[in-house]
Amino acid sequence: MDRRTLLAATPVLAAAGTAAAQPAAPALVGRPMPKLEQPEPLPPDRRVGFAVVGLGKFALNQILPAMGECRKARLAAVVSGDPAKGARIAAQHGAPRHYTYENFDEVARDLAVQVVYVILPNVFHRPFTERALRAGKHVLCEKPLATTAADARAMIAAARSADRWLMTAYRAQYEGFNREAIRRARSGELGPLRLITSDHGRPVKPEDPADEWRIRQALSGGGSLHDVGVYAVNAMRYLSGEEPAEAFATIASDPADPRFREVEDRVAWQFRMPSGLLTQGSTSYSYRETKRLTVFGEKATLRMDPATDYDLRRMWLAPEGETETEILLPLRNQFAAMMDHMAESVLENRAPRTPGEEGLRDLLAIEAIHESARTGRWVRVPPV
Amino acid sequence: MDRRTLLAATPVLAAAGTAAAQPAAPALVGRPMPKLEQPEPLPPDRRVGFAVVGLGKFALNQILPAMGECRKARLAAVVSGDPAKGARIAAQHGAPRHYTYENFDEVARDLAVQVVYVILPNVFHRPFTERALRAGKHVLCEKPLATTAADARAMIAAARSADRWLMTAYRAQYEGFNREAIRRARSGELGPLRLITSDHGRPVKPEDPADEWRIRQALSGGGSLHDVGVYAVNAMRYLSGEEPAEAFATIASDPADPRFREVEDRVAWQFRMPSGLLTQGSTSYSYRETKRLTVFGEKATLRMDPATDYDLRRMWLAPEGETETEILLPLRNQFAAMMDHMAESVLENRAPRTPGEEGLRDLLAIEAIHESARTGRWVRVPPV
Amino acid sequence: MDRRTLLAATPVLAAAGTAAAQPAAPALVGRPMPKLEQPEPLPPDRRVGFAVVGLGKFALNQILPAMGECRKARLAAVVSGDPAKGARIAAQHGAPRHYTYENFDEVARDLAVQVVYVILPNVFHRPFTERALRAGKHVLCEKPLATTAADARAMIAAARSADRWLMTAYRAQYEGFNREAIRRARSGELGPLRLITSDHGRPVKPEDPADEWRIRQALSGGGSLHDVGVYAVNAMRYLSGEEPAEAFATIASDPADPRFREVEDRVAWQFRMPSGLLTQGSTSYSYRETKRLTVFGEKATLRMDPATDYDLRRMWLAPEGETETEILLPLRNQFAAMMDHMAESVLENRAPRTPGEEGLRDLLAIEAIHESARTGRWVRVPPV
Amino acid sequence: MDRRTLLAATPVLAAAGTAAAQPAAPALVGRPMPKLEQPEPLPPDRRVGFAVVGLGKFALNQILPAMGECRKARLAAVVSGDPAKGARIAAQHGAPRHYTYENFDEVARDLAVQVVYVILPNVFHRPFTERALRAGKHVLCEKPLATTAADARAMIAAARSADRWLMTAYRAQYEGFNREAIRRARSGELGPLRLITSDHGRPVKPEDPADEWRIRQALSGGGSLHDVGVYAVNAMRYLSGEEPAEAFATIASDPADPRFREVEDRVAWQFRMPSGLLTQGSTSYSYRETKRLTVFGEKATLRMDPATDYDLRRMWLAPEGETETEILLPLRNQFAAMMDHMAESVLENRAPRTPGEEGLRDLLAIEAIHESARTGRWVRVPPV
Repeated sequence: MDRRTLLAATPVLAAAGTAAAQPAAPALVGRPMPKLEQPEPLPPDRRVGFAVVGLGKFALNQILPAMGECRKARLAAVVSGDPAKGARIAAQHGAPRHYTYENFDEVARDLAVQVVYVILPNVFHRPFTERALRAGKHVLCEKPLATTAADARAMIAAARSADRWLMTAYRAQYEGFNREAIRRARSGELGPLRLITSDHGRPVKPEDPADEWRIRQALSGGGSLHDVGVYAVNAMRYLSGEEPAEAFATIASDPADPRFREVEDRVAWQFRMPSGLLTQGSTSYSYRETKRLTVFGEKATLRMDPATDYDLRRMWLAPEGETETEILLPLRNQFAAMMDHMAESVLENRAPRTPGEEGLRDLLAIEAIHESARTGRWVRVPPV
Repeated sequence: MDRRTLLAATPVLAAAGTAAAQPAAPALVGRPMPKLEQPEPLPPDRRVGFAVVGLGKFALNQILPAMGECRKARLAAVVSGDPAKGARIAAQHGAPRHYTYENFDEVARDLAVQVVYVILPNVFHRPFTERALRAGKHVLCEKPLATTAADARAMIAAARSADRWLMTAYRAQYEGFNREAIRRARSGELGPLRLITSDHGRPVKPEDPADEWRIRQALSGGGSLHDVGVYAVNAMRYLSGEEPAEAFATIASDPADPRFREVEDRVAWQFRMPSGLLTQGSTSYSYRETKRLTVFGEKATLRMDPATDYDLRRMWLAPEGETETEILLPLRNQFAAMMDHMAESVLENRAPRTPGEEGLRDLLAIEAIHESARTGRWVRVPPV
Repeated sequence: MDRRTLLAATPVLAAAGTAAAQPAAPALVGRPMPKLEQPEPLPPDRRVGFAVVGLGKFALNQILPAMGECRKARLAAVVSGDPAKGARIAAQHGAPRHYTYENFDEVARDLAVQVVYVILPNVFHRPFTERALRAGKHVLCEKPLATTAADARAMIAAARSADRWLMTAYRAQYEGFNREAIRRARSGELGPLRLITSDHGRPVKPEDPADEWRIRQALSGGGSLHDVGVYAVNAMRYLSGEEPAEAFATIASDPADPRFREVEDRVAWQFRMPSGLLTQGSTSYSYRETKRLTVFGEKATLRMDPATDYDLRRMWLAPEGETETEILLPLRNQFAAMMDHMAESVLENRAPRTPGEEGLRDLLAIEAIHESARTGRWVRVPPV
Repeated sequence: MDRRTLLAATPVLAAAGTAAAQPAAPALVGRPMPKLEQPEPLPPDRRVGFAVVGLGKFALNQILPAMGECRKARLAAVVSGDPAKGARIAAQHGAPRHYTYENFDEVARDLAVQVVYVILPNVFHRPFTERALRAGKHVLCEKPLATTAADARAMIAAARSADRWLMTAYRAQYEGFNREAIRRARSGELGPLRLITSDHGRPVKPEDPADEWRIRQALSGGGSLHDVGVYAVNAMRYLSGEEPAEAFATIASDPADPRFREVEDRVAWQFRMPSGLLTQGSTSYSYRETKRLTVFGEKATLRMDPATDYDLRRMWLAPEGETETEILLPLRNQFAAMMDHMAESVLENRAPRTPGEEGLRDLLAIEAIHESARTGRWVRVPPV
């Protein structure tokens, strides 16, 4: 009895249904597989196990909930400095194991863990990445990849030696609106690109424990540019597909503001791209939360605001001579997409789209920005 | 060593970190639990197990993915007419068991299943609800609760006899924007309510297998009003907190359109509410997808568009004498919130917010609308 | 020396210009007429002279300023009950003459006046229209054309007898966004029309002198429906190009609100159009200012909000299966366009697009709405 | 008989009105002067007479129509290279006289003309300003005030010698949204200002006669920066109330694009303001029409897009921690406001808000931008 038979038969059954509902049930047969909006998930026991290192605000509010939306990744362990907190979170999220920062190296013997996801203050990115690699695990590391380009190079070298994948956790490059922006910018749909602008900043609030470390140079490695400006630096590169040749920048911080004793507040910079494309960016720890970008092409302007928010993304296209139109796409979980990509790299043994080098390139550009601000001159951005 | 100690110690450690990163790691200790944006999840083995009956487009694209975002519910079984499809979906989503429509009654012996979620063509809502209740399970049933008010009454009675909860799957009442709209409408923030309007419709496409049954009266029990207009009927009630006293309506269908041989296309209706509040609604199977509502109060107008979309909700508030402002809230998964609510009802043994009676009330209003369209007069909406 | 010669010659001249600017001037010759965005104006002495009767808030803030934007109409006189006010306003706006309500009939001898524009409380529309016609003038009369359909018929008959044009001042039908909406709705671009909704209302404020008369039945002839609901009634007709066959309506007013002792507050109505098109409208004197409409076609939905504001109009098009897009048009002065249309009718001796009959049709529909609200039944809308 | 008497009396009169309308008229007496939204206009014969020099696209589509909306200025003459065109335009707009570029100096004897408004290709700004001053007239001159700062200084000196006012036609500074932005930025409502960004550009189209001269260095004095970038330079100054201390810039033009043989395409620049405020701007002749700006303060971000369009302005305010809200203001004619301001300067004998020095300051900044682009260094912006 196929679906057509079902439909032919049902009026009678349904009519009967009202009086005595049970007979209708046998007529209900399976239907063909519907079109799925997303790929089918892997059975849980075939998914790639992740250990999440660091259980702060970001991990608990974004990453662990996103695990439930993954199709190829699953939570295999959590790592916290507080064993009680680790135990509680592991239980709630169904992770079979939990570790502390001290006993973290034991993860080497945990076969359920294939990937270590490092979510710690910046200065700890390198040491925990190196410990994870020594334990034989692949590493997904939060941005910025390290506090210095030199550290990032060391991490890349370590991954190569360990024959493991190192991926920079650039969630925006796995997010649907940004993927669509990349497609439109690089396909020529916007015409030759003429200018990219991006402003990314937010008020840093040291009274919030999640921000306290950010204004300490020794922990963060830098201020707004390392923390949020890096989204703008990265976007200029991924939207254009080009690497900055030179950087020019100004840095300004209110000397009376105690937040900016160690790290910078505002940075305004330009990149010259090899094609002649210009970019202008800003970041700040003192202006209102801003996460926006614009790509100006000869044929159309594409605008995103917010471009890189956790919860919301909005995009508009303004073709030359026409009205600006909002482009609506489904808002999918970008963290899940990013972790699934890392899982695919492991499953298929291929380099992730945003490897360690992707994080290194942004740190090279960031260091050129800092040097230009010191010297008042254009500074060449060195290659990887 | 507490967090303050950590921060005092880190400059040294971080400086060392660049040269030799490993020593820094011991300084990284656990931090206090951050503020969570959502309640903590129950450990998986304490969550309430759901059996999902029917694996069509809606179940596969919305409900099963939403299970991963639940904090109190988990998938315990799937039920499909096609055993191979059932097995495949069960494996992908980690459900330990799968059933067919034929052997569904065996679920009675499946202790992992506490709730049966019925997602089938409307005419099958009653028989499967009754089978699930006989198997000793609680039931979450898709909207409309049944094809007729009489069937809905029978289902409510069956649940009462079985001492099990019956909940109508009105997702909008568990969705954040709609919760906020209810709060504002009922708290007096908008002033006395004067008018509620809502238009909900979409083009029905019988060539799509997911729509084929909708134009068959014997399967659907009705046209656009049963299917999408019910969102507007329900919203008028949940926004106002009132029950319609009388209904007036017109129905119009293009006689040349083969889609409308059995079911209606367009319905335009008014309700008179006991307080003097008026409402105006429309639904259609032939106009472009529309899911909007407006609440007009003396002090402010609140508008949602789309109000009840799967992926997107947008809301604006227009106070008297001021500019209309968009109200941004996080877009959370409404299906997960709904299933978690059912799970809470089971765990805490209390009636769900949208019990069977909630579905019955809409069917009584729908039947009054149909009668008014036939007679050209106001028709009283009977009480439950 | 043509434009090309100019451009060939200018580098030299301009270079000289910096040092000694005067020689450059001779090289600057006239250029061809550029493309004009609007028709060329008539010389002032060939424009049609208007006498504006009534110098209240609307006349002083909207109509007299709009005269400066007219291209075929000009202000020839003002008429006020207060001679000092009349003299002052006439001088400020360059009107050669001013009259009082008492000596208004002397306008018959004023050859500069060809059109009388009546802007008075509704009950005075008929008597002043008739006086103007007797004085041999054409008449532009504010909406609603009269307080009753009977009065409107009398005014139309009087104009016919006097062989003068009578035009209803339906500014929306001369406004660019509404013209574009009409074009799209009637051209088939939206597909067959399925539903039109429109809500037009605002809080009436009797403490404002401009509103005081509106809640007095003897002056206004009715409440929100006569005053603002008429925009929705008119829009349903001009968007569809159809005349309502039948009306159904409810009227509700808070009995405790002293504003609604003589006139109604809220009206919700439906029209059945001959083609099967449905419409739903509302008006109110107690909800926040609202001026919106939606046209639902099979292929696309067109939305305007606000549709009929003095200063702003916004329009969106939502094609089936695509994103809603805002349609941006220049915001032109709708009052000037309306008066220029009346001037054209006089200059070219042809009926205006919104003659007296256009106002009468809305009054017939309004009276059917009132009767339906009294009887609880569908009421036929009689033809002109 | 006052207004209250009228209202008491009217029910009877109105009732009579239906049967025999004429008697009602006597009861209609004058009402008190309503609140006006804008200042009362001067009688036409007391307004300040303008001669408009140059009848191109901008003059015919924007300036002459705007004259009808002026309250203190009126059109007294037009000046064109083509006497027939001049005569036709003068007649249509009611200007009593018209001149050619050759006989323009005769305007000295035209007592109806008090102000000469120069709307010519940039290189002619200085010579025509000087001729008008020699004829004893005040001058309103289009932007940029001149092609070079040296020319601007000469024009300012000439006005001072002639004891006449020279005003730069910076319409944005007379436009309501920009006035409101200035108020908010300078009042501290946004908190201390941290960054201002502005992008102003449009594709230049030499095949359009209105653009042909713009790509000729000898006529325009520069490319996109002189033409549209000047809006961004000016906005950074008027929003902050500060003068740039230093400028840094890059210029890029596609060498293969024939439009950019003489003038530049794209400019990206930074200003350092004395307070520590940073600004970033861009202009282009090759990206889609863009006219936007953002002011980032510590407490709120204010955004305008478009900021300086002829027809439309939109503005949003985003306070820290709150949703961005659109700020709606009436769209008033900015050209009329600007000309009325010049008229007030003449009537009240006081300097205009945007004198010649205002235009000079932007030219000094523009020249610093150009020098920085040549040298790759920060360049000091000299004072006036």
